[in-house]
Amino acid sequence: MNPSIRMFDLAGADDELRFSPNCWRTRLALAHKGLPVETVAWRFTEKDRIAPSGQGKVPVLVVGDRWLHESWDIAEYLEDHYPQAPSLFGCAQGRATARFINQWSSSVLHPAVARVVVPDIPAALHEKDRAYFRSTREAAFGRSLETIAGEREQALAALRQVLTPLRSVLDQQPFLAGAAPAYADHCVFGAFQWARIISPLALTEPDDAVSAWVERMLDAYDGLARAARRNLPGQQP
Amino acid sequence: MNPSIRMFDLAGADDELRFSPNCWRTRLALAHKGLPVETVAWRFTEKDRIAPSGQGKVPVLVVGDRWLHESWDIAEYLEDHYPQAPSLFGCAQGRATARFINQWSSSVLHPAVARVVVPDIPAALHEKDRAYFRSTREAAFGRSLETIAGEREQALAALRQVLTPLRSVLDQQPFLAGAAPAYADHCVFGAFQWARIISPLALTEPDDAVSAWVERMLDAYDGLARAARRNLPGQQP
Repeated sequence: MNPSIRMFDLAGADDELRFSPNCWRTRLALAHKGLPVETVAWRFTEKDRIAPSGQGKVPVLVVGDRWLHESWDIAEYLEDHYPQAPSLFGCAQGRATARFINQWSSSVLHPAVARVVVPDIPAALHEKDRAYFRSTREAAFGRSLETIAGEREQALAALRQVLTPLRSVLDQQPFLAGAAPAYADHCVFGAFQWARIISPLALTEPDDAVSAWVERMLDAYDGLARAARRNLPGQQP
Repeated sequence: MNPSIRMFDLAGADDELRFSPNCWRTRLALAHKGLPVETVAWRFTEKDRIAPSGQGKVPVLVVGDRWLHESWDIAEYLEDHYPQAPSLFGCAQGRATARFINQWSSSVLHPAVARVVVPDIPAALHEKDRAYFRSTREAAFGRSLETIAGEREQALAALRQVLTPLRSVLDQQPFLAGAAPAYADHCVFGAFQWARIISPLALTEPDDAVSAWVERMLDAYDGLARAARRNLPGQQP
């Protein structure tokens, strides 16, 4: 019998608002493997609750009595420990090349999406996270959230340029992993789900091949991502 | 018995100076598959010689009486028609994710490398290609080769930033395809081999993980890429 799996998942003021791109990578990887998970609402400032993982960021997965962190390492753990479940990578070369897509997503895509959506985040946060969020993000960007908000139009244009290789691939095949989604898709889609949950802005035009892929990802795994609560103006939690 | 393979390969003034990044992708893929090839020196302006391919760019591969073009399509052809030879992709997911790396290389890496090395190219070209090269490149960049040459320092800094996801992966594993090189490596290395052959500038610092990978790629396939002639100042053709 598999040990039970718990996941610390970043939440907003509303416990059900789960918007972390890296946590979504892990949620989708677990769904891909068919592994049930109990998610636990967690806030940026609750470092003590995940201290056994040895660091302060989510996702943190607790499998039996083992604490795991870092979305890529969690994906490798799931692939290696649940080899009978559908593969996240297909083969050793598939794993190696998915790592590049994962790194592209983390180092190129996430910062480009952040420049567009970060100004929408404070309104969704739990009160106790607001000061932490502002100070860490303003330090990372080197400017105020208000300045970033004023640069949105250029940020959106820059993001759409960044999507070029993604768009070219999705013009040719339905998913990054080929005919069906796998971890190459999860690690990129997390950023789109982050934006979808936290911001009313559309990252891509409706006729963009990336938009059609986002819709397919929202439908995947019985509509797991589509069912997620969004922080839309006028929507009651 | 396999049909013989000929490849039209971009050459400089010197027939043996073979500097096209896309042709290098195909050379390495053929070596990976263990397929002998007769390369044919070809110049930009010799469109008539490759007209049976239905377009005007190299690599063009002639396998028996079949004409193939576009480096990615050639790689897929080789994978599908020589299934007993070592795989370029590993599995279907590996092929799908290598496509992303290939597109990243073509749409992000090549333009970034071009901004650094393009000013070195005219000196290496056959006389009959020089006007063609200048007019097509100046149209593509929207400025003169001399202006591009004046922006080299910024171009090199921008390139090193573009290499971030590549560098992160190569900090973790020896090749993009994992433990050994495959097409994910060929399609990226082509750009480094292009620069190495045509320009005296070093694209990366010696302590960069990318530099160590370039050395491994130069050694791969019995040192095929390392043996290539370079257009270095003072070197006799």
